[in-house]
Amino acid sequence: MDSQGRYVRRGVSSAKEDVHRAVAALDKGLFPTAFCRILPDALGGDERAALVLHADGAGTKSIVAYLLWRETGDPAHFAGIAQDAAVMNIDDMLCVGATGPFVLSSTIGRNKSLVGGEVVGAVINGFHAFAARLGALGIELVIGGGETADMGDLVRTIAVDATCAARLRRDEVIDNANIRPGDLIVALSGTGAATYEDKENSGIGSNGLTSARHDLLNRAYAARYPETWAPSTPESLVYSGSFGLGDPLPGTALSIGEALASPTRTYAPIIREVLERGRRLVHGLVHCTGGGQTKCLRFGGEVRYVKDNPFPVPPLFRLIHAESGSSWRELHEVFNMGHRLEVFACEEGAALVEEAAARFSVEARRIGRVERAGGRRELIIAGPEGTLAWERGLP
Amino acid sequence: MDSQGRYVRRGVSSAKEDVHRAVAALDKGLFPTAFCRILPDALGGDERAALVLHADGAGTKSIVAYLLWRETGDPAHFAGIAQDAAVMNIDDMLCVGATGPFVLSSTIGRNKSLVGGEVVGAVINGFHAFAARLGALGIELVIGGGETADMGDLVRTIAVDATCAARLRRDEVIDNANIRPGDLIVALSGTGAATYEDKENSGIGSNGLTSARHDLLNRAYAARYPETWAPSTPESLVYSGSFGLGDPLPGTALSIGEALASPTRTYAPIIREVLERGRRLVHGLVHCTGGGQTKCLRFGGEVRYVKDNPFPVPPLFRLIHAESGSSWRELHEVFNMGHRLEVFACEEGAALVEEAAARFSVEARRIGRVERAGGRRELIIAGPEGTLAWERGLP
Repeated sequence: MDSQGRYVRRGVSSAKEDVHRAVAALDKGLFPTAFCRILPDALGGDERAALVLHADGAGTKSIVAYLLWRETGDPAHFAGIAQDAAVMNIDDMLCVGATGPFVLSSTIGRNKSLVGGEVVGAVINGFHAFAARLGALGIELVIGGGETADMGDLVRTIAVDATCAARLRRDEVIDNANIRPGDLIVALSGTGAATYEDKENSGIGSNGLTSARHDLLNRAYAARYPETWAPSTPESLVYSGSFGLGDPLPGTALSIGEALASPTRTYAPIIREVLERGRRLVHGLVHCTGGGQTKCLRFGGEVRYVKDNPFPVPPLFRLIHAESGSSWRELHEVFNMGHRLEVFACEEGAALVEEAAARFSVEARRIGRVERAGGRRELIIAGPEGTLAWERGLP
Repeated sequence: MDSQGRYVRRGVSSAKEDVHRAVAALDKGLFPTAFCRILPDALGGDERAALVLHADGAGTKSIVAYLLWRETGDPAHFAGIAQDAAVMNIDDMLCVGATGPFVLSSTIGRNKSLVGGEVVGAVINGFHAFAARLGALGIELVIGGGETADMGDLVRTIAVDATCAARLRRDEVIDNANIRPGDLIVALSGTGAATYEDKENSGIGSNGLTSARHDLLNRAYAARYPETWAPSTPESLVYSGSFGLGDPLPGTALSIGEALASPTRTYAPIIREVLERGRRLVHGLVHCTGGGQTKCLRFGGEVRYVKDNPFPVPPLFRLIHAESGSSWRELHEVFNMGHRLEVFACEEGAALVEEAAARFSVEARRIGRVERAGGRRELIIAGPEGTLAWERGLP
């Protein structure tokens, strides 16, 4: 069975085609080709300003924290989930040029019979701790409050979402329509340890966690924690890997559990510095979330994205490949495969990104370039075992 | 077994004590005694302005829509769920004096194997339809986008949440600390049909739906839709009522299913008119959501809330009482019992509320008054079978 099938049969979809169809007719905002929907400044009424109100969450990554908490008794495993939910918003918003202040409100849904106040407290404190960390880096994140809803009939364990608001000048909006042939693609690594992180990051981010968790962890978790998987999932796809949470992830100092729970890195300190020093040099930004390495195909004109010098595939994604038998093509459609942010820029902009990234000990790499294509968008990636190619018609 | 027990054993809590404890130490914003957390204007930087970023959702009411959809095949049953999620935010925000523009972003979590794009589309279109309806009443609601997350391992069917932003002048904030002895309590009915509603409203709102659904609907739904209840719930509490969705609700023109799904009424048109004409006459506003009729006990100083002339208990809540055997006391702690909004005002303010409500065909009633109490807050309600009383220590 292919990985796409594995993904869909677990009740998720990386591309969400049916949702995109459902919302196709809706207003796309002031900059329809930007990474996030950008609204008029409805709150301030300033015609030169724009507003972004963005929603995203930690997805099923909270289940990894749940497993770690249940196995260790330590609710602190949920702090990273708050960071995941926050960064999934903030880093999306970076891609339209917003660098703060950000105002965040959280939504926690839980099954109260399984998840007590100490866990909710750990999540909420996690939001505040992450805001403090960003604040020390000069990025303002205001935690505006939130809601905890007890709904055991709806939520099996705990779901953590966040909604984030930012305001920016319209003439400072990054619009991915400006991505052009000749641009360099500079990627920011998801692995290693940034100056603003406490330890090595696996690079997992917050996408593909349903697959990663089931493909790596072993059957014992299925019986021990039946509340962590949908009963409609075919049994062969439930915790079908060979590892325990405490097993080491080869090639890292992390356990499998730590690697799966590794908090989503924000690139905000780096992008803020890049935009402050050379906003005009940046033509586009793509956060490689749902759709993984193929996310860029949603943006730009008649262009071919050529990523012929990507980062080596990080250990965690290599292991998922080995365990699941999923093809490299399919893994690139689900996971970020090593970098979660792509900057599309001229030579001078690329150098600026490299400088800023170095200051924060995040590896930057010129992974490729943008070429002219005819009548459609194309994507070529040098995969670990040969070239992968995708194409997409223009809207 | 008492209703409190029924509620908790179904994995929910109306008072969420553990959550309140978990967040007790956090910053309470500019007006710690207001109904919602009020932030400095982090987005606009205006010291005279304030920002509210509020999160809430439809809770388990989406399961009622799910049942109706599965029984009829019509995804339009989900339009009301969008209104529920929107109004749970907007009417909370009314209570601090915000009357728009509101900017809303939605978060939909679903099990993709059960809930397809036509349902997500119905929810999203529901948000837009409700915004159009409010717009026609002069209340601006901007739909800022949203996120649909496929996470079958977390969400049994579909969860619909929303986050809403508004900005207002600090000197226009309604702060419930101003509720004072001598105030009249004017309540706005949840039943009947407002001029801006298409049909009779049951008054259910979006709280207590786990209880209402299980206490009224019969066992057949448990077997037919096992995805709509937590397996940890004691069997005796799962769909333990005697009704089908299509059975009539005595005393109304609604079926049980329609009554349970009845969209949460907004009081925005009425409150907007009241605040425009006499903001200074309104001392406080309480949205009777979690905690039902006891919600007011969270606000005010050394006061006694005396509600000795409440609306008659609406048919839906009477039926829940009869079916579940829950005490009136417990029902008042979970459900709104007929009115979801309370205005605390002087005589002149009360008259203003009555005038505005009449214009929109919503019944307003002077249900009681605020008296001076010693060293604590008290609440007295004339229940259907005798006086009910609560008290609470001051913070």
